[in-house]
Amino acid sequence: MYIHLVRRPGAGTGPITFREFSMDRFFNPSSVAVIGSSNSPFNLGATISNILGYLGFPGELYAVNSKGEDVHGSRGFRSVLDIPGEVDLAIILTPARATPGVIRECGEKGIRHLVIETAEFSEAGEGGRRLQAEISEYAREYGMRFLGPNCLGTLNAHNRFCCFFGIIPGMYDEVFDRPGAISYVIQSGGVGALVIDSFRKDITNVNKMVSIGNKEDVDEADLIEYFDGDNTEVICLYLENVKNGRKLLETARRVRKPILVYKVGRTGEGAKAAMSHTAGMANNDIIFESACRQTGIVRLKSISELYTLPKIFTEMPLMKGRRVAVFTNSGAFGGITADLIVEGGLEMAVFSEATQERLRSTAKLFNVSNPVDLGPTLGKQAFIDIWDAILSSDTVDGLLAVPNVWQQVVVEAICELGEICRKYDKPAAIYIPNAIERILAIRTGYNLPVFESPEEAVRALTVSYEHCRALGKKALEPLPV
Amino acid sequence: MYIHLVRRPGAGTGPITFREFSMDRFFNPSSVAVIGSSNSPFNLGATISNILGYLGFPGELYAVNSKGEDVHGSRGFRSVLDIPGEVDLAIILTPARATPGVIRECGEKGIRHLVIETAEFSEAGEGGRRLQAEISEYAREYGMRFLGPNCLGTLNAHNRFCCFFGIIPGMYDEVFDRPGAISYVIQSGGVGALVIDSFRKDITNVNKMVSIGNKEDVDEADLIEYFDGDNTEVICLYLENVKNGRKLLETARRVRKPILVYKVGRTGEGAKAAMSHTAGMANNDIIFESACRQTGIVRLKSISELYTLPKIFTEMPLMKGRRVAVFTNSGAFGGITADLIVEGGLEMAVFSEATQERLRSTAKLFNVSNPVDLGPTLGKQAFIDIWDAILSSDTVDGLLAVPNVWQQVVVEAICELGEICRKYDKPAAIYIPNAIERILAIRTGYNLPVFESPEEAVRALTVSYEHCRALGKKALEPLPV
Repeated sequence: MYIHLVRRPGAGTGPITFREFSMDRFFNPSSVAVIGSSNSPFNLGATISNILGYLGFPGELYAVNSKGEDVHGSRGFRSVLDIPGEVDLAIILTPARATPGVIRECGEKGIRHLVIETAEFSEAGEGGRRLQAEISEYAREYGMRFLGPNCLGTLNAHNRFCCFFGIIPGMYDEVFDRPGAISYVIQSGGVGALVIDSFRKDITNVNKMVSIGNKEDVDEADLIEYFDGDNTEVICLYLENVKNGRKLLETARRVRKPILVYKVGRTGEGAKAAMSHTAGMANNDIIFESACRQTGIVRLKSISELYTLPKIFTEMPLMKGRRVAVFTNSGAFGGITADLIVEGGLEMAVFSEATQERLRSTAKLFNVSNPVDLGPTLGKQAFIDIWDAILSSDTVDGLLAVPNVWQQVVVEAICELGEICRKYDKPAAIYIPNAIERILAIRTGYNLPVFESPEEAVRALTVSYEHCRALGKKALEPLPV
Repeated sequence: MYIHLVRRPGAGTGPITFREFSMDRFFNPSSVAVIGSSNSPFNLGATISNILGYLGFPGELYAVNSKGEDVHGSRGFRSVLDIPGEVDLAIILTPARATPGVIRECGEKGIRHLVIETAEFSEAGEGGRRLQAEISEYAREYGMRFLGPNCLGTLNAHNRFCCFFGIIPGMYDEVFDRPGAISYVIQSGGVGALVIDSFRKDITNVNKMVSIGNKEDVDEADLIEYFDGDNTEVICLYLENVKNGRKLLETARRVRKPILVYKVGRTGEGAKAAMSHTAGMANNDIIFESACRQTGIVRLKSISELYTLPKIFTEMPLMKGRRVAVFTNSGAFGGITADLIVEGGLEMAVFSEATQERLRSTAKLFNVSNPVDLGPTLGKQAFIDIWDAILSSDTVDGLLAVPNVWQQVVVEAICELGEICRKYDKPAAIYIPNAIERILAIRTGYNLPVFESPEEAVRALTVSYEHCRALGKKALEPLPV
């Protein structure tokens, strides 16, 4: 659907091998040429050749530079046209002014997928804007599609592929050693690095990440559509602007996976600052907000939500109503979380007499109405019985568990909470006020969906419910053709 | 001023030694009796005798229990009346019903300071309420003042004193080994534990902490007044209710140190949950909010702000206006923080031509207007020159520094930022998006006022400005008599 077969008369002379375009090739190429990768000091292309070698990329690796020299084990050529085999994906880091010529050569070679990482295009003023239009024109002529310019390209944790410039072997080992289910479209390398860094101690991790920079061709909507069809479970976006709002919203409307978006430019000052970064136009944020509501896009409230919230979707059933039960064995957190639940648009569940009676039979409780406040106990079973009583209740849609962890039995009890949630098809968000360092260190090992603040935990239940409600609306609407 | 000398006729018979009351004795007692400390298994009083021994408390330590036995090195007695020397502070952990008798004995002994840690008073229904009124009556008769009931009492990091029950030797070593300047009034032990735990990796730390529980006698206003006169730099409160609003507000109005308050019960559900915890009444939150604004109390937005924000006051000059300059070497964070600054009620500073010219001379910058976006550099001096140019500008009230840290030189540059801030008497809040784990590990050592999210950093500048503005208003108002 994305192939443009028109060729400008007189443009290029050699025969063109039209490899079929597929968005998947940006993440799963079988042969890669890094154009502008050389052995000069501080060469950015070389860092890509280096990381691909380090990661053990199994396909063919080529480096294109003026000397035609090999770089970090990639075979060197002076031009892509000299490369004997087919090239699936070309990664371009030549200076901006050299890029149009390079792209024409890629077209002649029959390359269909380009990552143009070079900067100084439309984000850098009028000259750059003209250059960006020019490369766009060439790509269209040759039926090529591209990411960028002014981007980092792609990362695929599952097949150990990464063409981000500047990363050093070892830097992202945790991502590749422990691939996850969350895919990111990120309009900035810096935010991508932050996300990856933040997953080190978390239960979830990255599936794919793509930095789209000035997104002259491939944009967030194309990638949402692609992630809807692959092994992604949650789609997260960091956007500095939206160029084609209608396309984004129509795509979002079709997709049933959760789409979480943090967008810069909520204020005029933010939009202005973003423009100098990735060359977007200021968007009307009120329109964007209302569009998100219509299409079920979850709007994130802080940059950290990009990495803290997805685990409520990957680890827990959806929240199907507003009614939250709170469990704590540290009384203060009952009041703290009740405020947050109401402020977040959810409700405190009201327990039936039967549920309260069942709770009374489990252990010594300070409070059997909601929030449930457990007194000192040494028994793992007390926790499990209480959670079962709560989650089995008809008046409860989800659980906010705030256990203080003083003994190992509490950790062991929490490990069984996931099972209870699956049994009743309701989610729990866990926040542990004390011993946070200890818990974070073991979170991944124990597979505990633990949040790092009461605000995060409540937000997780809120976005889960938001998404569930949007799904309900989508089911009622006729699918767009 | 707090001494009540009236004695009910017939109450008590022996001579009373009236030691002078002083709030300071709660934190700096010279002799302590833990009443209800025994060698029975799971005895809570014993944990206090134990921790005081472990911390090396230099004064006299007594344990009162039915057998009169020594506990963890504290000399044992059957009654406080049997203790030969004076007792500065009595810590009471006997069962609620036994408390009135114990308190009378303390009165007879001439003890003026009590910490009543026992629970099951007014938070536990009508019987508890009557009991609480009774102990209050006895205390008044004997001219005693007390913390609690249903509390943990006090911690003083500077003299290694702590009477929190349940803490285990070694648990809070970091607090006592590295005393700080922030004092806390906390209406819940759980929140106190969270605060202490959260300071492990931070630049600032606790000075004193007091858990006031049901606050039948000594309340937050008394303690604010006390902290205003000691070595505290920032006063932080966690409140579940306010009993005497007028007293709190009149005290706050007099105090010039920053007072930061997180209050539960912003919603009806939160207030209800808090009532079952520390027996408060639901307060009208709108009235509280407006009272805070009038008296310059800074209202906190999340429980974590209790420990993340104070460092902007302890490490940095006050923010004297709204105009923030942003510095980053990771373009995305310019837009992200500009949104947050405007949404937080601050403004993006506008640089003069002269400032922009000076910035141009420092290094290769992608942007010399605000946000300042630095390109790749290897020089520590470039950072310092840019920050000096920014902070010396007449149109800038504070700096938000968002450096990505790839090299050690950046850390070294940040270490000099404090000096530049003091030179121009303007604050900087630092947020470092990547390598956060690395930075947090060295934050204390390097004395870097680093915040852990862009939201936190912007909030820090906001509350600094809020406090500064409140101080300006206080200066204009006549001091209350």
